[in-house]
Amino acid sequence: MSIRFKLIKKSSQGEARAGQIITSRGMIKTPVFMPVGTQATVKSASPEELVSIGAEIILSNTYHLFLRPGQEIISLCGGLHSFMHWDRPILTDSGGYQIFSLGRLRKVTDEGAKFQSHINGSYHLLTPEQVVEFQQLVLGSDIIMPLDECAPYPCTYDHAREAVERTSLWAKRSKETHLHCGMRNAECGIKDLPQLGTRRPASGCPEPETSSLFGIVQGNVYQELRQCSLEDLLALDFSGYALGGLSVGEPKSLLYEVVGYTAPLLPAEKPRYLMGVGPPEDLLTAIELGIDMFDCVIPTRHARTGSVFTSQGLVVIRNAEYARDSSPLDPNCDCYTCRHYSRAYIRHLINCGEILGIRLNTLHNIHFMVNLMRQAREAIIEDRFLEFKKGFLGQYLG
Amino acid sequence: MSIRFKLIKKSSQGEARAGQIITSRGMIKTPVFMPVGTQATVKSASPEELVSIGAEIILSNTYHLFLRPGQEIISLCGGLHSFMHWDRPILTDSGGYQIFSLGRLRKVTDEGAKFQSHINGSYHLLTPEQVVEFQQLVLGSDIIMPLDECAPYPCTYDHAREAVERTSLWAKRSKETHLHCGMRNAECGIKDLPQLGTRRPASGCPEPETSSLFGIVQGNVYQELRQCSLEDLLALDFSGYALGGLSVGEPKSLLYEVVGYTAPLLPAEKPRYLMGVGPPEDLLTAIELGIDMFDCVIPTRHARTGSVFTSQGLVVIRNAEYARDSSPLDPNCDCYTCRHYSRAYIRHLINCGEILGIRLNTLHNIHFMVNLMRQAREAIIEDRFLEFKKGFLGQYLG
Repeated sequence: MSIRFKLIKKSSQGEARAGQIITSRGMIKTPVFMPVGTQATVKSASPEELVSIGAEIILSNTYHLFLRPGQEIISLCGGLHSFMHWDRPILTDSGGYQIFSLGRLRKVTDEGAKFQSHINGSYHLLTPEQVVEFQQLVLGSDIIMPLDECAPYPCTYDHAREAVERTSLWAKRSKETHLHCGMRNAECGIKDLPQLGTRRPASGCPEPETSSLFGIVQGNVYQELRQCSLEDLLALDFSGYALGGLSVGEPKSLLYEVVGYTAPLLPAEKPRYLMGVGPPEDLLTAIELGIDMFDCVIPTRHARTGSVFTSQGLVVIRNAEYARDSSPLDPNCDCYTCRHYSRAYIRHLINCGEILGIRLNTLHNIHFMVNLMRQAREAIIEDRFLEFKKGFLGQYLG
Repeated sequence: MSIRFKLIKKSSQGEARAGQIITSRGMIKTPVFMPVGTQATVKSASPEELVSIGAEIILSNTYHLFLRPGQEIISLCGGLHSFMHWDRPILTDSGGYQIFSLGRLRKVTDEGAKFQSHINGSYHLLTPEQVVEFQQLVLGSDIIMPLDECAPYPCTYDHAREAVERTSLWAKRSKETHLHCGMRNAECGIKDLPQLGTRRPASGCPEPETSSLFGIVQGNVYQELRQCSLEDLLALDFSGYALGGLSVGEPKSLLYEVVGYTAPLLPAEKPRYLMGVGPPEDLLTAIELGIDMFDCVIPTRHARTGSVFTSQGLVVIRNAEYARDSSPLDPNCDCYTCRHYSRAYIRHLINCGEILGIRLNTLHNIHFMVNLMRQAREAIIEDRFLEFKKGFLGQYLG
């Protein structure tokens, strides 16, 4: 079964939407924040903890899993859900962003992306076909992102145009491969690829299903190119549409501008995903502009460096001012961390390099994001989103 | 309320005992393994996870907590239980072993131990009086260990005798201080020490209680000195007796020999604690010799380096042979880790430096120790301990 998107409510002011994405592994309420599990684990958190926080979908990374542990081991273990003990939906990105971040370690042609592993320097070629096959047949992802070319910021018009053209070319081949894999055709490009039917079903999970493929709109900060990219993708009829190539160093005003003119052009009956974004203020602005799905590493990364989101703004818990603070991270929060631990204790743990400190911060930060999306959704349904956004940001940005 | 020890069953062959330690924070079934929470956290585990494994008491370290975060912060947070969100019993060691491990950074006189912090090189003096006061009035420990002098191995008879004499001198002063603190006398040695009554009670915990003080038998590997040490301590009537100064590099045969001739001399109606021991084979041997309580860092330390205890012996999960192994760490284990994850996944996590790998290994290793004690206890109660030990070691040591 492919995913289905159901629009529940559209804001009367602005483009904000509340919806549902129905998948064979459960329902996802939108707007949604997807915690990032790069290496088949959301750093420091257990699956049960993510469920108890209310995470309905996580993201994992094709590039990292392709290199380590690789297709053979994941296949042997019955696919990504079974491997990592997560039976809710998983979206996997294509590795496009990671490969383009490698800089001089990669070379891109129409065939695909040649690159050197960041782990051991070994050479690899990833084609759009292989990327889809890996996600569909090895990982068993619920939502698949095709290989795209992510242009840097700043970037000339011509460079951005070439990236759009290649992204469209690859999108077409990805779509064909996805249909092809869906028919369980054995002639796949990856050597020794297991047949769908030979995978051990994950215990407690439904049998592997045909997954859904999204399109990724590129075009950098050029409105005309964003439009071209989108038109190419619409012709291919994807299950959802993502905005890629953003949050790569451009100023916030440009990010908002690009989302502002692109999001309303995306089909209303499909989910809309802004890749790699972001801090709370960006999430709320993008929701207002019509975005439904987000992912970002900052809740987990901040947790490790000792920063936590609170209703009053970001708190750097390492700072000496919290050494004698027996209050919770956020007095307005009811997460596990805030119910049981003080700032003084968490600062002590982080100062001592203790893993529990990272765990407690991670749970709090992911809860913060998931809860922000929950509150935003309620506000949209009750048609008071702008009021909610203003109230939240007034406190958060102080 | 002081702890009470109840002997449930003594083995008809050998000295093995099954018992109960009754404390105001819950009952501890013996033999018991105490997970070590050096810096107010059992490395990588949450209190709820320890409870679900069945840990009934944990150990924490006076030396580390005295230096960081220090008495002021722990007092502010309502004592150690409240600070770390653990409402079952805590035993705190005296710091004697840590201070004597500092080598040239410390100087010991009858007054106490002068030492330099391993964290920042600052100078400190810990006296037997301060150590008891800190554990009783700041930490609120349930079981307190007095400051002792731990002689190294190898060690001359004269050096070992001096350490025994000083340990006896300090034991007497510790006992006096403990009585004194119990009477809530304000004239304590630590500056700005909070009064018992001014501590914020830990939520859900009983009010701070007078804790119980153990005696530590020293004497190195000299039977005569062990006997002298014990006689000195018996005259002071402690709530329990520990064997200290072992597991400091001596061969296993000597460890067993010392425990063998010392344990039977300890009062039968008090709990007996072998400090800092050890691997499963040492625990079972010591139980056979009449020991009730153990602590050791190896379950948590092994977890971080990627080694796990199994019924078939120690498994180094980092090894390449486990890369494609979709079976659990131990097929005979029903812990959280073994119910949900494969060796291949855990090896992947450890190889990637992922915290969840350490967490899963930690839960498994602590479960292994707690479960070993549970099985040993059942075997003692059913008077088949030697048979159980033989069966376990036959498999474990291969």
